[in-house]
Order: sequence, then structure tokens, then C-alpha cells
Amino acid sequence: MANPVLPSSGALSPLGLDAVRLAPGFWGDRVALNREVTIAHAHEWMEREGWIGNFRGELPRRGREFSDSEIYKLLEAMAWAGHPDFAELALTVVKAQEGDGYLNTRWSGSRYTDFEWGHELYCYGHLIQAGVARLRTHGQDAFTEAVRKAADHVCRRFMDGTETCGHPELEMAMVELYRATGVERYLELARRLLERRGLPALGPIHLGAAYFQDDLPVRQATTLRGHAVRALYLACGAVDVAVETGDDQLMEAVRSQWERAVARRTHLTGGMGSRHADEGFGEDFELPPDRAYAETCAGIASIMLSHRLLLATGEVVYADLAERTLFNVLATGVALDGRSFFYSNPLQVRVPAEPSDGINLGHSGGLRSPWFAVSCCPSNIARTFASLGSYLAAADPSGLRIHHHTPAVIEGAGLRVAVETGYPWSGGVGVRMLADGRGRLSLRVPAWAEGATVGYGPAQAADLARREAPFPAGARDEVAARTRIVRDATPGYTAVEGEWRAGDVVTLDLPMAPRWTFPDRRVDALRGTAAVERGPLVYCAESVADEPPLAGLSARLTPPVEHAGPSGVVELEVEAVLGEEESAGWPYSSRPAQPATTGTSLRLVPYHRWGNAGPATMRVWLPTTG
Amino acid sequence: MANPVLPSSGALSPLGLDAVRLAPGFWGDRVALNREVTIAHAHEWMEREGWIGNFRGELPRRGREFSDSEIYKLLEAMAWAGHPDFAELALTVVKAQEGDGYLNTRWSGSRYTDFEWGHELYCYGHLIQAGVARLRTHGQDAFTEAVRKAADHVCRRFMDGTETCGHPELEMAMVELYRATGVERYLELARRLLERRGLPALGPIHLGAAYFQDDLPVRQATTLRGHAVRALYLACGAVDVAVETGDDQLMEAVRSQWERAVARRTHLTGGMGSRHADEGFGEDFELPPDRAYAETCAGIASIMLSHRLLLATGEVVYADLAERTLFNVLATGVALDGRSFFYSNPLQVRVPAEPSDGINLGHSGGLRSPWFAVSCCPSNIARTFASLGSYLAAADPSGLRIHHHTPAVIEGAGLRVAVETGYPWSGGVGVRMLADGRGRLSLRVPAWAEGATVGYGPAQAADLARREAPFPAGARDEVAARTRIVRDATPGYTAVEGEWRAGDVVTLDLPMAPRWTFPDRRVDALRGTAAVERGPLVYCAESVADEPPLAGLSARLTPPVEHAGPSGVVELEVEAVLGEEESAGWPYSSRPAQPATTGTSLRLVPYHRWGNAGPATMRVWLPTTG
Repeated sequence: MANPVLPSSGALSPLGLDAVRLAPGFWGDRVALNREVTIAHAHEWMEREGWIGNFRGELPRRGREFSDSEIYKLLEAMAWAGHPDFAELALTVVKAQEGDGYLNTRWSGSRYTDFEWGHELYCYGHLIQAGVARLRTHGQDAFTEAVRKAADHVCRRFMDGTETCGHPELEMAMVELYRATGVERYLELARRLLERRGLPALGPIHLGAAYFQDDLPVRQATTLRGHAVRALYLACGAVDVAVETGDDQLMEAVRSQWERAVARRTHLTGGMGSRHADEGFGEDFELPPDRAYAETCAGIASIMLSHRLLLATGEVVYADLAERTLFNVLATGVALDGRSFFYSNPLQVRVPAEPSDGINLGHSGGLRSPWFAVSCCPSNIARTFASLGSYLAAADPSGLRIHHHTPAVIEGAGLRVAVETGYPWSGGVGVRMLADGRGRLSLRVPAWAEGATVGYGPAQAADLARREAPFPAGARDEVAARTRIVRDATPGYTAVEGEWRAGDVVTLDLPMAPRWTFPDRRVDALRGTAAVERGPLVYCAESVADEPPLAGLSARLTPPVEHAGPSGVVELEVEAVLGEEESAGWPYSSRPAQPATTGTSLRLVPYHRWGNAGPATMRVWLPTTG
Repeated sequence: MANPVLPSSGALSPLGLDAVRLAPGFWGDRVALNREVTIAHAHEWMEREGWIGNFRGELPRRGREFSDSEIYKLLEAMAWAGHPDFAELALTVVKAQEGDGYLNTRWSGSRYTDFEWGHELYCYGHLIQAGVARLRTHGQDAFTEAVRKAADHVCRRFMDGTETCGHPELEMAMVELYRATGVERYLELARRLLERRGLPALGPIHLGAAYFQDDLPVRQATTLRGHAVRALYLACGAVDVAVETGDDQLMEAVRSQWERAVARRTHLTGGMGSRHADEGFGEDFELPPDRAYAETCAGIASIMLSHRLLLATGEVVYADLAERTLFNVLATGVALDGRSFFYSNPLQVRVPAEPSDGINLGHSGGLRSPWFAVSCCPSNIARTFASLGSYLAAADPSGLRIHHHTPAVIEGAGLRVAVETGYPWSGGVGVRMLADGRGRLSLRVPAWAEGATVGYGPAQAADLARREAPFPAGARDEVAARTRIVRDATPGYTAVEGEWRAGDVVTLDLPMAPRWTFPDRRVDALRGTAAVERGPLVYCAESVADEPPLAGLSARLTPPVEHAGPSGVVELEVEAVLGEEESAGWPYSSRPAQPATTGTSLRLVPYHRWGNAGPATMRVWLPTTG
């Protein structure tokens, strides 16, 4: 089945990419853009930067020590997307492989001499994930044979001993290759790599052993820590090993790490990582909006982890966090034109970025860049969108479960349905049966959706759900009158059982009123602020020409007002006051800042859409009056 | 004259180290500790780490590419302190010099191949500063000849062309060598290095050209930016060049950069630098207490810059910032035993550091370390304390000016005085004439000291000033009754003219009541907090075993109460309330944090003394109630 994660057991069974066909809508549009624009864009840049040339032996070798992995992630994206350029690029990779299976353009002459920073096993991990994608979308070919040969080489070299890689990734890849081939040594290697980490397995580095999760064995750690992408990839591998080996203790360890990290180390957007210096989580409640790192890759890795935990447990909390991260990190990470990307995703930008359409040597978060010196994010975005369908729904023992509401045709658990919705702009979701069938249909009601209702009945009720605008006043009654049953749907999965006939419609009505959200008092960096959310979307104030000047504004906590923005986007307006001019001298004084008095208003846009109109200032968390 | 900075013109003339003899007291004790303990400590570690062995050709070479500079800073410290180990260590350095004057243990085989990161000219800068120290304390010898030879080599190689060093430092060293020798090419090279920077002179790096101030010519920049130590060293060189060449435009440029950086990019402690990733300033008003980098070296560099601007202009603002930085960064940077050091100086520590008495591979700020992989701070501290006397007083055209009040005997401008004071614990300062003389005596009244008075009259009045405790109630009247004249002394320099007789005493009475200080509203990271200062000292709450738990406390803005701490230290107590338990789940909710109710109190200690009792949590900025 065409799906990047296929556990042999668990509460939920994933559906193949063929079984979830996205239609035009929030996610369908982005998946199409990815296939039509982003994949080719990444391909061009990798060629231009010489990272593909490295496989052809062009000298001098170009790119960082891990640049091979970008080609592999692109191949994975091409495989899931059925992209025509796959075969040629894959052949270039295959030709670079050495006789014993070794494959790395950076370390060929000095194999395995730098486990802390060399990224060799990390690169194999991405190679193997590309191989699994090819196996599951196409079947065996020269590329998948090369991948198997590389995997066997790695098994021979690393099955025994104490070594591992500074960057986790191989663990989950090896488990997936085991799932795709049934060859148990791949699982066994993953298990061993996991167990030897933290004994410790790596040498000292200036960022400390927690940077690459080598401070503690994975099953002893109580939270996610260190480099965020490394931590999350390792946790993915741990879930995969736990599922395949029935290791409940390991599964519990990862679940409690997730729980603690989500409660104390996660930004409102779902973004993870608060430190630039080590691309790391930082400490509990260290959640600065301006220096939030919230790397796009860490958001993707978080979605990967939540997805695995959701499949294993069926618990809605994992789908809730995945949705938050999909809408507010993944969708933010790429521009509306599919050709430029955020590496870090701060929640506040004080100074507009310098305009540039060239390569970004750093990771600054104020302007989407077409490419980066370390360009892990574009190819990670590409492979995630290319396999996005696999995240949206699953089968449970009783029927079909839909996690994420977006226009699509979904087939699974004996049901075939069309989802029709303007979500996240409107809260109505219609699920129309496309064929007669029998079984439970479960729809996720997000944690914020107190007051949701579910109705089920004849087809015409679905017309309401297609409306782009929020439900008008009284619409709920209208739904009720035209459907057989309407009942409250509390957050979680709301299930409707039935003998279905083609045309039957289940309607979910999610309340979409904008809401003010406040931080825990322990988040020092957010004291005295609040943010606005609407549905699954975090909103932000964006100021393109410093008009209004965001530095001087405080918001009043009155209900935000909705406005129709471009392309059906819902924008919001809040009341605000402008602070008086502060001193131009020493910024600390014996006099507290005085209350501001000049009333004004402030337009808020969905966070994922900010930064599409050129350099701007931005803030998610607004200082509040009083 | 024995003094690290001897401009040929300016509002003030510095005094030699012989002219400012420190007596036991806040600074005198620390200078003695530096001479007796810290210099030898640094010497031992440099030997142990192999950085001195590099000069003896021991292989493999050890330490970072700039480790030579540590030996030079230690030599400078030894020269100013008249330390007996100078000669042997200097000889080791001299022997490593190549025939044409080149001297660098890292780049000998590949000279001048990496201007961005190589630090070769930076290392020469420190070598030359050590040479100037030796010239001014001892006169010519083999070491100073080697230094001249190196300087001449550098002049030959770099007088023409467009190259400069990624790390400024050589500029001010060359100006000082010019001042010490009169050889104009040294000044000319400094001028050229300064002018070619920002054209740009260096290649692209991932941290951006502003990191090493190569984004703009120094005279076009409007603020200090990028790597804080680099920025401040460059500004020191610019002031030195401006003074020696009469370049008023350049001087004005640096003054306005200083002014803007102090108003927007400086922590309450005087610490500079808000970012770990590039050890950099960050943006205006980006002043996070927890991630404040505030490198000890940047504090020292800021003192160096303020000192230069003070000498050039005579304006008290530079002395005010220098005092703040001396007490709250320099004094903080070294432990009370003189053997361990802070690299970064955050204003908040949430999680106690792991105890360790080994080398610190990173720069984390929770625990003073005996040594670092990048150990720039200990040797910088050593050379600064060894020359501290030069910062305390100066001669102006009318007489003697005392910037910093600490027990000492000072001779200058025809006056010879003893300063007697318990400052900063008490606010009384007595300046006793040790000889008959004539001239103006100017004493600095810090900006915070509204309500200060100055009195002058017979000797017995000085007895009051020697008291360690704050002046008791009515003391001011007592001073008035026993002196000829008492008058208000507004912040700035308060001047007393006179025909002095030995035994005459001038008494300054600075009000030392603790005061609450509030941040500018634009400092997002400090919203809703206040700090306590007393005299020149910033205070902090320190919690050794998380008792009280600082995360849950809010302070009431009632007047802090003074307590006698150990060694005459004044500690403070403020009223506080404990917040209720927050949720253990998602840290953002629709309910604002509720007001806390449980009253308690909170002990505050001077910030420079925190972290001497083992790992602890700490915060300068306290959340306030209401």
C-alpha cells in the first residue's frame, strides 16, 4: 500500500495514498502546487548548487556533509507524487554506489570517521525512506535494489558494536524497510541503534550530549530535548520499534515525553524548538515568540510523531496537535507560490527582513527563501505534501475515521465518501456517501470546538456545508430541520453508525467564533499578552510598511470581528490602543510604562499566510491593555 | 606612563597605574585576588590545555584557531600586574616567531588563507597590547622587540590592499603601539583597516556580514550590531583613530552608535549581546533575561569603549555606563575565589546548571567554570583587573576627577588624595587630602543618585564616610554640622575648588535607598516585570534548592527592606505572592492566569554575587502583581 508508515499493528490502520484523493480545497490545492511547482523547484536548485553533481563525481564536491539526504528526500517526494523525473534522478544516485553498498558523496574516502557530525547513517535513513516510497508506489527496480544493498551494508557494518549517528533518522527508516520487505535484520538494527544511544554512544561536543539525545537512553528520558528535529525523528523511530516489537514500556516512554514536551515546550502554532544556537527545544516554558526557532522540519517531524502515536493508540490528542502543526507550521513553511520557504517560524518579527531572492546562508525567519545553504526544509515539505493524504484518515476496527477535514474522496473500511467543506474558513463539514455501505463513520471534533454538532440525513443538508462563509445565525436550526438527527458532538471523535445509502450525508458543524488565548503564567516571554485563534488557525498582526507600528500597540480583549479577505480567507479585526512615545535614552526607569489612550484597530491574518506580501513585521502574541 | 589607553588629546588625561593605588575595598580586594590567584590559575590552564605548548611546537597543536590570543592577554595581565611569570612566558612566545616577524601557531603553514575565521590579525592585536603593556611597565626587551617585528610584518603585508580580519582588535592595538612608539605607520594601518571594513572586505558567511561589522563602513553605521565583542572592539579602534587623526565625524559616528545601542540593546546590568547563535546584539529591544548572552568579554569591551569615550569627551554618561558594567558584569564574571568564570551572564536562570568543575565546552551561564574550550573571558578578566586603576580617575584641565568611588590613594593634577568609602554598600565617600595642594576636585554623582550632597571641611567628617552601613537617619545633618559647607550634588560631576591643606576632607553622600526599576514597554521579554537596584548594583532573587520556587512568584511593588548579609553585603527583601498551580497540559487556554493570593517574601542578593553557592535558579526581573 502506498503509504510512508504502515505499522503491523495498532489502534488504527492507515489508508493508502490511492484511497485518499484530495479535491480542490485548503490541502488539495497545496498538494497540487507541491506536485506541479515545488518538486521541480527543489530539483532545479539541487542541480544548480551541485548537490546532484556530487553523485556524478563532479569536483570539487559541493554542499554540506549531509547534502545527499536532500536528493533522497526529493526522490521520496517524487515517488509519492508519481513524478516523471524520479527515474533519471534515481539512476544518478544508483551509479554512485560503491561495490559493497556504501553510498555517500562526502565521506567515500574516509568512511565512518565522524559519527558526531558526519550524518552518514542519517543519509542512509533518507535513502531508505525513498526506497520504501518507490517499493510501495512502483515495486522493485534498480533503485530499490541499490537501497537494499545499502541497507545490507549498513546492517553488516553496524549490527554489532556501540556506534550510532549524531542525527537520528535511520531508526524509523530501517523499521519501515522491514515493514516493506519482511527482512527482520532491518528491524533488529533499528532496535539496536535505539538501545545503544545514550549509553552514551557518541563523543563530547560543545553543545552537550542532549543535543543529539545521547545524554540518556531513550526509554529513560522524560521529555523531548536537544536539537528538535533529531529528538522528534528519534522518537518516531522509537514508536516504530515499540510497535513492531510489542515494547509497551518504550511506547509509554515516548508518550510521556510527547506529553511533557507538548505541555511545556511547544509554541502556540505547534512549532517546536526555542533556540537558534542548537536548533533545540530549550527549557520548559522557554517559549520566546521572537526567537522561536520552530523549524519547518521540526514541525514536519512533530506531525510524523503525532501520526505514529495516533495510529498506535487512536487517541485524539495526537490528531489535535497534528492539525495545529499542519495548519500553522507546514502550511506556513511554504509561500503561496510554492517556490520559497521558511526555515524557522518565529511568532514575532520586529524588523522586516532584507528583501532577497537569492540563497539564504542562514535560517532567519522573516522572509521565505527559494533555497538555503542548509536546505533541509524544502525537500521535507515536498515529501510531506506528496504523502499528505496518508495523514488525513484511517480505518479503525469499526469503520472509517477522518482526522482532518478537507475536500477529498476517501475509501476505506468498506465505505466510500466525499468530504465537502470550506474548512478552515467555515466550520461546516459534509461527508457524503458515494456508495451503499455499512460501518461506523468517526469524525474528529477538535479540542477547541466546544458546542459542535453532528447531523446525519439526506443529501441536501450537505449544501450548507459547502458554503465558504461561516454558518449564518440560525443555520444550525436549518441543518436540524433538514436532517434526521442533530446532536451535540463533544471534542474527540464523534461516531455515527449506519447502514448507508449512496447520497446519505453526515454533517459536522464546528463553531468558528474567533477566540482569545492566554499563555500559562510560567511562559515568561509571553507575560501580558494574548493571541487570537479561530478554528485550527493561529492569527497574527502583520504590518508591511510599519503601518500600524506593531511595537507600540496593545490589544483590547473585546471579541474579534470577522472580515472577508482575499481567496475566501477570513481575516479578523481587534480593538487596540497606541502607546505613548517612550524615552529615547536608557530603557529602564523608575516609572512604569503608562497606559496608552489612543484607540485604533488592528487587522489580523492567518499566521500561515503572513510574509507573502514582502518583508513585514509580525506578531502572534499581542500585548493586552490592563 | 603605565596605562593601557593614552590618547594624545581629549577632555581628560588618564593617570598611570602607579598613580592610582587601590586599598582594601570592593575593587582593591578583587584586584589583589586577580594578581594573587586568577593570573596563576589562567596560566596553569593554558599550560594544561596545551595552548602554551603550541608555542613550543608541541604536536598535535591544541586549542582553537585563536588560542594564541589567550597567552597574549595573560601576558598583558602579567605586565600590568608586575607578575614574576611574565619573562619566562614571554620568552616562549618570542622563540616561536618566524624570521620575517610572522607569529601564529595555527596558521604558520597556511598564512592568511582565512580572513573570515582565521583570527590572525586579531591575535596580533592582543600580542601588541601585551607589548604595549610591557613597554609602559618595563621598557624595551626581547619581547617588545618581537612585538615590533610582528607589527612591522603586519604593516608590510596589510598596509595596501583590501583585506582585514573577521575579528576587529588590531585597530586599537596599532593605535596604542603608535602612541607608545611614535611610529606613524601603526596609526596609518589602523586607519586603513578601519576604512576598508564594510566596503565589504570579507567573504559571505552564514551569520551575515553584520556579524563581523562588514555590512557597512564604520562611519555609516547607526548602531552597534552583530557579534558584540567584535562590534565593541571595532568601536574602540574607531575612537582611538578618531582621537589621533582629529576625525570628528568618525567620533560622532561612534558616539551615536553607542547612544543608540545603550538605549535599545543593553541589559539592565550593562551586559551587551542578546543572542547565543552569533554572540550578537540582536535587534533593538530584543533583551531576553533568560537568553541574555551578555558575554563577560563584551562587558569588558563595553567598559573599554566607555572609557575611551569618557577620556575623549569628559561626559559623565560614559562613566555611568562603565560603573554599571563594572559592578554588574565584570564583578559577576569571576567567582569570589577568583578561580571560575561566567562566559555569558543571563539575567534569569530557570534550571540549575549541572555541577561540574571541569572544562566548559559551551558558554552556558548558570555556573562559573574554571576554564572553557573558548576561554577568552578569564584572560580578559585578568588583564582588566590588572589595569583597573587606570579606569578610576583622570586629570582634567582644572584638576582631579574621580569617576569610580573605591578605597584608593590617587595622585594626579597636583593633588594627592585618599578615598575612603564602604561603597557600594554604603553611600558615603570621603576624599582626604594627603598633601597641601591647589585645584579642582570633581567627584562623579551617578545618574541614579538624585538627592546626593557634597560636603567639604575638616578631617573628622570623613569618619562618617568610612562606615560600612548606610548612613543612619540624621547623618546628613551630622555631616552638615561638622563641615564647613554642604550642598546638593546633582548627577554628573560635582566639583569643589580649593586651596587644600593636608587633612581636608570632601564628603560625598549618595542616597542608597533600594529602588524599583521598570522596563520600556518595547522590551517584549520584560513585560509585566520590575527589578530592584540599590546604588550601582542590580539585585536578583537566587534560589539554591528551588526554595522558594521562582517560577511561581510575583513581587509586590512595596519598598524593599535592607538586611545585613555576609561580608558587609547589603541584601534586600521584597514582598511577594505565590501563584496557584497551573495546568499540566497544553499551556495556552481561554482563561487568563488568575491573580495569586498566598503572601510570602523574597530575598534579593546583589547580582554580581549570585551563583557562588552552587547551582541555583535566579532572576533579576520579577513578575509583578497587578
